[in-house]
Amino acid sequence: MPDALAQLQTAIGHQFEAPDLLVKALRHRSVGAHNNERLEFLGDGLLNFVIAHALYQARPDVPEGDLSRLRATLVRESTLARVAQGLKLGDLVELGQGERASGGHRRASIRADALEAVIGAVYLDGGFESAAGVVKTLWRDELTTLPDAESLKDSKTRLQEWLQARGLALPVYRVISESGPVHKRQFVAECQCATVACQGEGSSRRKAEQNAAAACLTQLLTEANVDA
Amino acid sequence: MPDALAQLQTAIGHQFEAPDLLVKALRHRSVGAHNNERLEFLGDGLLNFVIAHALYQARPDVPEGDLSRLRATLVRESTLARVAQGLKLGDLVELGQGERASGGHRRASIRADALEAVIGAVYLDGGFESAAGVVKTLWRDELTTLPDAESLKDSKTRLQEWLQARGLALPVYRVISESGPVHKRQFVAECQCATVACQGEGSSRRKAEQNAAAACLTQLLTEANVDA
Repeated sequence: MPDALAQLQTAIGHQFEAPDLLVKALRHRSVGAHNNERLEFLGDGLLNFVIAHALYQARPDVPEGDLSRLRATLVRESTLARVAQGLKLGDLVELGQGERASGGHRRASIRADALEAVIGAVYLDGGFESAAGVVKTLWRDELTTLPDAESLKDSKTRLQEWLQARGLALPVYRVISESGPVHKRQFVAECQCATVACQGEGSSRRKAEQNAAAACLTQLLTEANVDA
Repeated sequence: MPDALAQLQTAIGHQFEAPDLLVKALRHRSVGAHNNERLEFLGDGLLNFVIAHALYQARPDVPEGDLSRLRATLVRESTLARVAQGLKLGDLVELGQGERASGGHRRASIRADALEAVIGAVYLDGGFESAAGVVKTLWRDELTTLPDAESLKDSKTRLQEWLQARGLALPVYRVISESGPVHKRQFVAECQCATVACQGEGSSRRKAEQNAAAACLTQLLTEANVDA
């Protein structure tokens, strides 16, 4: 076994009984048939569950919606790619000629997929507890510096909850204007609630509404502070 | 412990060390704060992973995309509700007064959520192997009568794969017409590929294109059979 794979096993804290599984986990589909896609499917499922359980334990008092949002930030591609970067997985992935020539080693999605495949391979090699241990080792930093669940909510959700907590009516949204060419559409939406009405812009109706909601929330919080 | 909960434990094949967990798993959010939503989050993750692994084993030769589609059919709400029905979970769920009055016991989503929560509770009570065993027991019928992975693909995907396998150009889609009031829009799309061009109708552009693709595929398969 090459040094690099020995180092990887040390870094993740698992020595493979069947090192072929690890080799397969690092084989991108551009190489051919026996690639890492099925292992990635398995690893993705395991990762989602282990992170779910870690959050369930770490945040005993937050509701399910917050757990879901926290998990989404911990298992999204950019997080996976960062963890994979720490393991230098980009250098270890086996790529087909075309993919290698076009810089596949530097692609975040390829690193992220390979990391999930490695996790799947550990599960097949050593069982659930081994794989869960690897995930908890690799995600230690992410799990100890969890973002505030509240900050992950989108503006429309936060505004709605703020209003409901005060027994106020739900906001009313309407699109004020829609302009620009098809591929570069621009929307302006208005959000009206409590004592305020604010506008927001964006490249979709949804984004414009979110920006309008954020503006309303800022104004309501400012007014509440002034009154207090 | 009431008889009904004893029977449920026999049916799922797990005797709880901490029966309070099972009671909590059956408490709908309409009852109040200490409900089953967090357990449902945990059980959902475990179920997805255990089914992923069962499919990985049961279908050693199918690609990742087929595994994903198979899993989606096995963990969707209607499947969960059917499994929950077999356990009479609807009768066991504890509901708030309003939810009970409006027939919550018969709601598929409430049964399905409670089943995920029960799975999460088994995991906390007995660990991974216990919970995985319960899932495999409850999903035995579904796992032994898996649909053909090919049949789960949508028509556009199947058409594209059929054409690619024969080295033919990809289909071209275009919307022919769009009519009707906003809440009841009707689209007609055309799909053109190989030797055929067919139209399809639907309430969205996507549905119209799917129907057009299905019509093309039928025609191409018929032509291929006639030629053969």
